[in-house]
Amino acid sequence: MREASVGVVKPKQFTFSGPQDELVLESGQKLSPITLAYETYGELNSDRSNAILVFHALSGDAHAAGYHKRGEEKPGWWDIAIGPGKMFDTNRYFVICSNVIGGCRGSTGPSSVDLRTGRPYGLGFPLVTIKDMVNAQAMLLDHLGIETVLAAAGGSMGGFQVLQFAVSYPNRCRLAIPIATAGRQSAQNIAFDEIGRQAIMADPRWNKGDYQAWEAPVDGLSIARMVGHVTYLSDETLRRKFGRRAKESVCANGGSFFREPYFEIESYLRHKGNAFTKRFDANSYLYITRAIDLFDLAPGCDSLEPAFRGCKSRFLVLSFSSDWLYPPYQSQEIVKAIQENGLSVEYHMIESSYGHDAFLLEADKIEDIISRFLITDSRKKYYEVDKGYPIS
Amino acid sequence: MREASVGVVKPKQFTFSGPQDELVLESGQKLSPITLAYETYGELNSDRSNAILVFHALSGDAHAAGYHKRGEEKPGWWDIAIGPGKMFDTNRYFVICSNVIGGCRGSTGPSSVDLRTGRPYGLGFPLVTIKDMVNAQAMLLDHLGIETVLAAAGGSMGGFQVLQFAVSYPNRCRLAIPIATAGRQSAQNIAFDEIGRQAIMADPRWNKGDYQAWEAPVDGLSIARMVGHVTYLSDETLRRKFGRRAKESVCANGGSFFREPYFEIESYLRHKGNAFTKRFDANSYLYITRAIDLFDLAPGCDSLEPAFRGCKSRFLVLSFSSDWLYPPYQSQEIVKAIQENGLSVEYHMIESSYGHDAFLLEADKIEDIISRFLITDSRKKYYEVDKGYPIS
Repeated sequence: MREASVGVVKPKQFTFSGPQDELVLESGQKLSPITLAYETYGELNSDRSNAILVFHALSGDAHAAGYHKRGEEKPGWWDIAIGPGKMFDTNRYFVICSNVIGGCRGSTGPSSVDLRTGRPYGLGFPLVTIKDMVNAQAMLLDHLGIETVLAAAGGSMGGFQVLQFAVSYPNRCRLAIPIATAGRQSAQNIAFDEIGRQAIMADPRWNKGDYQAWEAPVDGLSIARMVGHVTYLSDETLRRKFGRRAKESVCANGGSFFREPYFEIESYLRHKGNAFTKRFDANSYLYITRAIDLFDLAPGCDSLEPAFRGCKSRFLVLSFSSDWLYPPYQSQEIVKAIQENGLSVEYHMIESSYGHDAFLLEADKIEDIISRFLITDSRKKYYEVDKGYPIS
Repeated sequence: MREASVGVVKPKQFTFSGPQDELVLESGQKLSPITLAYETYGELNSDRSNAILVFHALSGDAHAAGYHKRGEEKPGWWDIAIGPGKMFDTNRYFVICSNVIGGCRGSTGPSSVDLRTGRPYGLGFPLVTIKDMVNAQAMLLDHLGIETVLAAAGGSMGGFQVLQFAVSYPNRCRLAIPIATAGRQSAQNIAFDEIGRQAIMADPRWNKGDYQAWEAPVDGLSIARMVGHVTYLSDETLRRKFGRRAKESVCANGGSFFREPYFEIESYLRHKGNAFTKRFDANSYLYITRAIDLFDLAPGCDSLEPAFRGCKSRFLVLSFSSDWLYPPYQSQEIVKAIQENGLSVEYHMIESSYGHDAFLLEADKIEDIISRFLITDSRKKYYEVDKGYPIS
């Protein structure tokens, strides 16, 4: 069934511009108007109880599944998970994914035009946090007429949003599926993010955040992406995929050893870095990594336990053995805190060599777990299946 | 005894400029003249049998122990290990450390003046490899009249040199102590090095390697150092040392969240990066990381076994549990290859939370192992103790 696709999907946007739609951010600043880019897959049932809100990670966007036009090579970022018969089964569920605020893929962010100046916000864009991102997406649910989602799911920064949503909106989230994530950003991860930010800000074209798209700090952004990319993989993946394979024969001229890639891994990284600059904005990278770094479900507490007080969701927590960006021990801290609150939680540490990216790749290993978790809940009649789809 | 110091030491330099001193590099290119900066601690005994050659890592230099002048705050980079009564006991051994060729701390490298042009070599400097570095240091041993060293020791890239020296000069190295190292550079480590190189080359001041010291690409070099620095530490060290401590109160102005460090770890990284640019040359960073990346004791072979054929040294291999740059499994590959050659090898995986930097910090945990390894050999009368120092 994995080959099945939601097919060609139409990107949507909604702009909240009324006075009542002004979003008061965690910083106290206000953001308005707010445009959210989003996509939906499957159909909302009559009692609006089969919605699944999928949150994207740092470099993701609203395009989680399917294609924007026929013949496109690459589907959405979680196409492996979303579609007919897949774990987020679009024959059964109504899946929603929206681009976070602060982003650059259709939602309001630092590259959006500030109506007061007629220029991109740049660093004039207010600081946004994970909580702000989630609040904006709750507004989208209001707009779609969905009070409570069956499930919220996401990996990495998407997992941050899952946790924040379950905590901030205890009555709007039946099931929560945080994957390859943590209850707070670690010092090591802040360090890697900071290196990326430094690389962007060291690029003269960054110009204190004041640049136009055609003169963007692509060198710095590319380096930031390379740093990120290595942290998404694993020592083992890199060894298997690239090892020490050289790209060309050894050249005796020292200079060319630096300007041209010598090892395949170098060429791959440069390609990944460069490709990223064609679809991502450097200021968004600064804002979103800062939101990630500021994320802490229970500031000032050793344990995450206080964060889940009042929470009502049932949790499925997944981690991957070789993920060193959000290692299993960080998922276990989440699990412990949920248990301490007497809430239901199912936890799996999945054996995988793919590192952090496993959450985007290891569909075979998690789809049964996720499908069953969603369906078990359906058997409890928390929601009605509209289409008479047989529950196996 | 650890407080004891070799005191104030005099940096030395020797220039090999005779026609017979020309070094034919692995690339086939020739390098001459070659200046080597070096330091020595302790005294060479009458039969010249108590020398220990210490090799430095990427950012190290010849100044391994003691002080260059009275009242200096920081001693040499391995002062914890080298001195009277320390593991490399200067009452007993004659310790030598020299700056590698390609370096920028007194030995010939890309920032040295090319006599043919009167300007710094820049990218006109030939590619150097770990083997070339070791060959240059063998020339230094010739100059010092030392045929065979009692031991060669070093961590990280210093360990690469230990292995290469033991393999290239089987009759010149009785004991070999590679620490926190590998028999070949992994794809993951090449990736991190490449990110650093990209950061340097993206700095406009790099100017294809053609710059003077006062207009050096310090922004790029600083970022390269930050990347390296994070890989030298561990998740646990960073959590304990910095955690999520904020440097200043949260500021509502988004902009300042990027230009100014917010978390202490950010401030620390920026400081480390900036400090590094005051003592290191960006082109040297390119050349030395390239030498590191090219290092492979047994190119084209899965096993390292062929590399040690003909080798005669006894080995002491040390790794650290939390070292994720050169993880214990990479040391174990070295150990296996040595054993397969029927050579003597002692291996210890030291429990430590300090990551790769443990080799510079965990003196308490390795000094007995190293002292005993050196002394056991002395009991076998491989060398004579000159000063009647009692062997415990």
